[in-house]
Amino acid sequence: MTSLPLNKLVVIGVGLIGGSFALALRHTGMVKQIVGIGRSQKNMQRAVELGVIDEIASNPAAALKNADFVLLAMPVGQTSHIMAQIAPCLESETIISDVGSTKQDVITAARTHLTRHLTRFIPSHPIAGTEFSGAEAASTHLFLDKHLIITPLTENSEQAISLVTALWQHCGAKVSCMPADQHDRILAIVSHLPHILAFTLMNHVHANIEDKPEEVLRFAGSSFRDCTRIASSSPEMWRDICLANQETLLKQIDVYQNKLSDLRTLLANNDGEALEKTFLQARETRQQWLESNQLLK
Amino acid sequence: MTSLPLNKLVVIGVGLIGGSFALALRHTGMVKQIVGIGRSQKNMQRAVELGVIDEIASNPAAALKNADFVLLAMPVGQTSHIMAQIAPCLESETIISDVGSTKQDVITAARTHLTRHLTRFIPSHPIAGTEFSGAEAASTHLFLDKHLIITPLTENSEQAISLVTALWQHCGAKVSCMPADQHDRILAIVSHLPHILAFTLMNHVHANIEDKPEEVLRFAGSSFRDCTRIASSSPEMWRDICLANQETLLKQIDVYQNKLSDLRTLLANNDGEALEKTFLQARETRQQWLESNQLLK
Repeated sequence: MTSLPLNKLVVIGVGLIGGSFALALRHTGMVKQIVGIGRSQKNMQRAVELGVIDEIASNPAAALKNADFVLLAMPVGQTSHIMAQIAPCLESETIISDVGSTKQDVITAARTHLTRHLTRFIPSHPIAGTEFSGAEAASTHLFLDKHLIITPLTENSEQAISLVTALWQHCGAKVSCMPADQHDRILAIVSHLPHILAFTLMNHVHANIEDKPEEVLRFAGSSFRDCTRIASSSPEMWRDICLANQETLLKQIDVYQNKLSDLRTLLANNDGEALEKTFLQARETRQQWLESNQLLK
Repeated sequence: MTSLPLNKLVVIGVGLIGGSFALALRHTGMVKQIVGIGRSQKNMQRAVELGVIDEIASNPAAALKNADFVLLAMPVGQTSHIMAQIAPCLESETIISDVGSTKQDVITAARTHLTRHLTRFIPSHPIAGTEFSGAEAASTHLFLDKHLIITPLTENSEQAISLVTALWQHCGAKVSCMPADQHDRILAIVSHLPHILAFTLMNHVHANIEDKPEEVLRFAGSSFRDCTRIASSSPEMWRDICLANQETLLKQIDVYQNKLSDLRTLLANNDGEALEKTFLQARETRQQWLESNQLLK
């Protein structure tokens, strides 16, 4: 039965998220030894220099021997591949978790590759990040007051869930549990759809054939800049997230397009009263949200 | 022939924009006397106290007597009404301009009510503002380094255009000229459409029937906050702008919907390569824009 502090933590993918998790647990004394596994030798060396990890794994088998806890923190596109690779080396007591932005696809991969470990594989997602990446970007306080969502499997043991919860709480995160489909739906609404809309708005300046993009953008101000900020996000990362949450995201795009069509109809009908009512509802919902989450600035 | 400094400036609607125009011209010594006309006696009194205007007009006829320049800075919804009201009192030398966010509708109103004054009515739009309003919010430097677009009428005299240009340059604005239809199209893309998308995204949390809005918003972070910031804008003002630019905005909504449908198709087809390419185009266009306009922060 694994208990805190951890004797041995293995982090697969020592980037912004995996590195910050390691730093936070070391900072709170919740881990004795941290071993890192990663593709880029340069990044792994830097992780050791920065004290993010104690050592670089020579091979997965050696790294996973006597490991209390394994965090999967590599790009989501590699989930299946890595799970298949580590499955044979995982010991019967080792608890495994991940940090993927989407959960249903990760769970599907786990049910395929981690069949003997489902009581101890706890699907998780820390809602935190910056536009930077790599061990260099890792920070001890990245997860402070951020949400961490666990989407438990029916097979998960209470002890394993409790340990993962405790670890993230030691990182400063606010831990919630919800079904994987609800997680993927909520994230599609508050994060994935906004990215799709921002990418599309940015490309819209090319879609308008009557004016040169640079001429249009010359007169764009802070409204446009804020609405398109996340259109500067990593294309590769967002390709993977969109594909991983494909079905849910397609539904949300459809709902959004219907709402946009409804608004278009009000405008086409010169229905000023209904337009104002719609805009007012949006403003009041936003105001209530900012107030109830102390996000007012 | 009106020359600078102006002997008498009349500002109709002494709010954020009209008041800041008055303050900037006084600051640069480009005006001797400033008379204000407005609905709210309280706001007009405050404008005098703050030194935004010298006096409150007793009636339009008295105010417009011997006026060198009249700025129409009231809410766009009142344009026709005010133009009809002042037309009989306008003197043959007085130059008139406005600050409306849309130009084709203002020009239509001018062609109806200011027929005898079209050589001296110069349609203009300063691309500047804050979320605040009223004389209280007026500031001397509001227009510094901001764009001011003039959409000249074929009837406009060169001297009148030159004077309006000079006045706004004294306010610190960068003056450009373009056809009214191009102005309304470009503003629809960089401002009106983004507002429509933000209002719709904010209301989208109600559209999702499976989860309570507050539950969804609990997990919304900075991406969602930035994308919806302008959904906190004035419903009344945006109702008027959308209706004033109806035809152009409807077209832009359609173009956007088509682009969004194209992206949806790529996602539905699992076309990761094309998705990544689309996201990359958006990121690069945004990067070039920020660099070429020194907007990087």
